[in-house]
Amino acid sequence: MSAGLFAPRGTTEVVERGLEFQPKFDADGLIPAIVTDAASGEVLMFAWMDAQALALTLEQGVAHFHSRSRRKLWRKGEESGNLLRVSEARIDCDQDVLWLKATVEGAGVACHTGSRSCFYRTVPVGARPSPQIRLTRD
Amino acid sequence: MSAGLFAPRGTTEVVERGLEFQPKFDADGLIPAIVTDAASGEVLMFAWMDAQALALTLEQGVAHFHSRSRRKLWRKGEESGNLLRVSEARIDCDQDVLWLKATVEGAGVACHTGSRSCFYRTVPVGARPSPQIRLTRD
Repeated sequence: MSAGLFAPRGTTEVVERGLEFQPKFDADGLIPAIVTDAASGEVLMFAWMDAQALALTLEQGVAHFHSRSRRKLWRKGEESGNLLRVSEARIDCDQDVLWLKATVEGAGVACHTGSRSCFYRTVPVGARPSPQIRLTRD
Repeated sequence: MSAGLFAPRGTTEVVERGLEFQPKFDADGLIPAIVTDAASGEVLMFAWMDAQALALTLEQGVAHFHSRSRRKLWRKGEESGNLLRVSEARIDCDQDVLWLKATVEGAGVACHTGSRSCFYRTVPVGARPSPQIRLTRD
């Protein structure tokens, strides 16, 4: 799927230290993408891209993903109007994770539940975990 | 592996709207974790946790992961001293991604390459992608 769109993987040295973009897609042809709010830095969401979604995202500056449940290309916000306008894209050391800084258009809501961010609940830290852990909602 | 440590998954409604912690581990028994700097909000790294790593992280407030390449529990910074002290943990809407806010101890370096963050290179946005894309290094 990525044939022709992006460069093939080089050596570890080239992947980590080089300036060639050689994104790694996993066995399912996907790469994970973290999306943060370009203004606040808050993590808004996390989703997966195939090569086509990544190419469209970089070209248009609007986030596209691959829906694993629906098995299709997904232009985030195409129905709700809450498009993610990407102002910056970063790749990690081993080039297998993307970080996108974005602005949410429309209602400014990134999560399908209606929350601004998908991460609207905190997990307690500092106590022994159990099946009875309770989350705290913002 | 997660048997007994965390609650089993409920309905979509419970998972998304509830206050029960029901983390989803994938077919390999792993859940992805995004780590941001507690002060700056910068994304520092991304890694995977199994149930044991997640339990240790929540109990100790120090990030543990599962190394997929070494196939073992990995207390981040155990060799370098750059432990990740977790001040806040969040879970996303469908409870299959974690977001940790952390402070890097020791030399303050989260990436094995010596960079503060693993995301030290940007990918150009706004032009048609090609195998010749060049990254920009911070």
